[in-house]
Amino acid sequence: MLELARLVAIVGAEHVLTRPGETFVYECDGTTHFRQRPAAVVLPASTAEVAAVVRELAVAGVPFVARGAGTGLSGGAVPIHGGIVIETARMRRVIEIDADNRFARVECGITNAAVSKAARPFGLFYAPDPSSQAACTIGGNVAENSGGPHCFKYGATFRHVLGVTAVLPDGEIVECGGPLADAPGLDIGTFLVGSEGTCAIVTEATLRLLPLPERTETLLAAFSTIEIACDVVKRILAAGLEPSALEILDRATIEAVERSVYAAGYPKDAGAVLLVEFDGLSESVDAASARAQALFQEAAALGFERASDDAHRSKLWKGRKGAFGAMGRLAPDLYVQDAVVPRSRLPEVLAKVVAIGREHGLRLSNVFHAGDGNLHPNVSYDRRDADEMARVLAAGAKIMQVCVDAGGSLSGEHGIGIEKRDAMHLVFSDDDLLRMRLLREAFNPRELLNPGKVLPTGKRCVEAKAGMLEPSAEDGP
Amino acid sequence: MLELARLVAIVGAEHVLTRPGETFVYECDGTTHFRQRPAAVVLPASTAEVAAVVRELAVAGVPFVARGAGTGLSGGAVPIHGGIVIETARMRRVIEIDADNRFARVECGITNAAVSKAARPFGLFYAPDPSSQAACTIGGNVAENSGGPHCFKYGATFRHVLGVTAVLPDGEIVECGGPLADAPGLDIGTFLVGSEGTCAIVTEATLRLLPLPERTETLLAAFSTIEIACDVVKRILAAGLEPSALEILDRATIEAVERSVYAAGYPKDAGAVLLVEFDGLSESVDAASARAQALFQEAAALGFERASDDAHRSKLWKGRKGAFGAMGRLAPDLYVQDAVVPRSRLPEVLAKVVAIGREHGLRLSNVFHAGDGNLHPNVSYDRRDADEMARVLAAGAKIMQVCVDAGGSLSGEHGIGIEKRDAMHLVFSDDDLLRMRLLREAFNPRELLNPGKVLPTGKRCVEAKAGMLEPSAEDGP
Repeated sequence: MLELARLVAIVGAEHVLTRPGETFVYECDGTTHFRQRPAAVVLPASTAEVAAVVRELAVAGVPFVARGAGTGLSGGAVPIHGGIVIETARMRRVIEIDADNRFARVECGITNAAVSKAARPFGLFYAPDPSSQAACTIGGNVAENSGGPHCFKYGATFRHVLGVTAVLPDGEIVECGGPLADAPGLDIGTFLVGSEGTCAIVTEATLRLLPLPERTETLLAAFSTIEIACDVVKRILAAGLEPSALEILDRATIEAVERSVYAAGYPKDAGAVLLVEFDGLSESVDAASARAQALFQEAAALGFERASDDAHRSKLWKGRKGAFGAMGRLAPDLYVQDAVVPRSRLPEVLAKVVAIGREHGLRLSNVFHAGDGNLHPNVSYDRRDADEMARVLAAGAKIMQVCVDAGGSLSGEHGIGIEKRDAMHLVFSDDDLLRMRLLREAFNPRELLNPGKVLPTGKRCVEAKAGMLEPSAEDGP
Repeated sequence: MLELARLVAIVGAEHVLTRPGETFVYECDGTTHFRQRPAAVVLPASTAEVAAVVRELAVAGVPFVARGAGTGLSGGAVPIHGGIVIETARMRRVIEIDADNRFARVECGITNAAVSKAARPFGLFYAPDPSSQAACTIGGNVAENSGGPHCFKYGATFRHVLGVTAVLPDGEIVECGGPLADAPGLDIGTFLVGSEGTCAIVTEATLRLLPLPERTETLLAAFSTIEIACDVVKRILAAGLEPSALEILDRATIEAVERSVYAAGYPKDAGAVLLVEFDGLSESVDAASARAQALFQEAAALGFERASDDAHRSKLWKGRKGAFGAMGRLAPDLYVQDAVVPRSRLPEVLAKVVAIGREHGLRLSNVFHAGDGNLHPNVSYDRRDADEMARVLAAGAKIMQVCVDAGGSLSGEHGIGIEKRDAMHLVFSDDDLLRMRLLREAFNPRELLNPGKVLPTGKRCVEAKAGMLEPSAEDGP
């Protein structure tokens, strides 16, 4: 039995939230259809306070889950078994920036964008850039191994985390890795990256910083079909160009964007627009950009634009970055799917995805990281409409199956969480899943930390399935 | 009790080696002072045969270790507890090359260089390039997370392994990861990369391929001191240039190289030479090369050379690639140390390393991956000279301590193996080591697979220490 007074003694009364009006915002993440309100939310100010809180919870046998900004898209930070949410918003310090050796040490409640902002005076930046980067935290990025448009060139979060400080589910503090190229020993730090908060709570991270590129140039090209846009991506890569980003928006997305405040001037008659960005030395960017433009012309682009200055570049990116917001305006809820397929199979898979949306009578649009084969079919819907909700989930399951059948997998960057836990059987055998469970148990033997996520289990699975997909009675907003 | 007939039934009599003249070459790897002859060497032809062999060994309770080409430098493939060596030399197939999605699937006995050779007709290559790449195998590279000169730009092996097929120590075959950007689930594949053959035997790997660069240009600059060469490295990186390699050779190495068949025409009066390579689009390489040359001049280089064609480039690299061979000619044995320090502390650490060599009366020279802060102090010695052998080991331990004291770590790329197992205490707490052991036990609970490596243990540690560092009586040649 947990006495909240013991948590109050660690973090102070004003940092333990229990009133429904306070805990309400912690009942879901960016995917609004998985909901469970925590018994309380605790806001520690340091690794030591996280450890002290966790020790109390471990002794009391109360489940708990860490949460950054709640921008996740697979329900990873939802306390589906109740218990306590440990929110890292008060842990936002930059502990150290070592410009010579190019790394930053930060507390994990800091936002992604704040790391690059702190590094900028040193001529450096932090490369992974999820669309939510202004809000999402490094702790959440580490848990989910977050991607972003520029991860095509730079790699996802796990390539940029050099070391972590973490609190294990029994309250022990561990340090893994560090700023050096290759530390010896089994690579626990990298193992924790992407483990979706099910093995430890990462409280501090040492992050690799990269030099700010001398020049960045952004190109936007419109094509009559999505197949042509995909083919141009293939040609750009075959030519040995090394773009930092390769993003495609389909016609439905263009229409939604151009009708919204995120209007970027994309041609409305295009079947798809392709955003290509190059960064690096000036001469190198000039050369790559010229070659890409020649490829656009060969592919009979309907038109293209080139942005060398920040203002123009922001305009071209505005539609891409605002795409989720624009689609969000079409209905109360937005379901952002996430799957990955071999790049060469993008056109056929996209055609099937569009057909599934049509068959289920859904407003479906596609934005995707074309370089990585990472799809984001988005459905605008209203979860209060039970029939539409059921069609959204049915279409989601079919899209997942199509991607897996094409040699793809369940998630490119949003994680498994609660959303795709039961779909893990599509790509992993029971033996695979058992082995993953053994590894997790080495860290989290009682499964008090973030229970019920990622790995399907017999009993828990059924329980959770029964309880999770129904909106709770007191659902807001 | 193992009956060899059961192994013969699986792989055929000609693929089970038991005669001393056959097993003798398997008693050590590239670091010749750790020696133990196996009871037998088995050469399976497929993953299924590896699994069948492992099942027999597991039932019989016999220790075993996988071995590629035996080029390792930390004793990782030495069967220190006796038992069976499973040699992968017959598993050299390229299973698939997917040029569109840029990956190769190979059997793990294939050499590193053969992967790039197979990819070349598709305009692709495999980036990690250990100095032993003509001989070393992908299986060994995966086990050790091997690096190489160009890993400064491209990253070490773990960044290039997309998935693996592995045989667990009970003989079960598992598939982890695959060709897609980010597969879901706990990342067992990446976990296995660098686990030094102590968790599973990786039998097949899916490797990321990269487009062959349009142009490569190599620069060699000579400086009066190693401090100046290190400072130029710092300036190159501060200028935002992105070299693919940054290698420094010190005066002792230059002298050894220039007196050998690997003579590359390095200026003998230089305190250090710096090799810098750029690759990518022609325009980009031209620009970066011109800027680097300007930095050489500002730093008062004693001279520099520029190679744009393959023949000239090979000449400049000849000394670097032949450095170990050149030093090997100075004495019967060569001890290649491997440690890593923050890049900014290279000059002070190198000065201390040279002093340690001098104090111990050793022929010590330095070749290092300057971009990564990855040192390779090399000692030419004769292990039959007990006094010199003792001085080599004493100096090695001191060098390790100097690197750790400078914020460094035990190994940049050669691994821990048996060599540095007892030094793990310098950088990890008992708790850290226990946690690593728990993870390993999730895979390898009986420690039949590659026992006694990487992690120090009370009893095993002492046993091994007593037995390992003495050359065995029947040592040849």
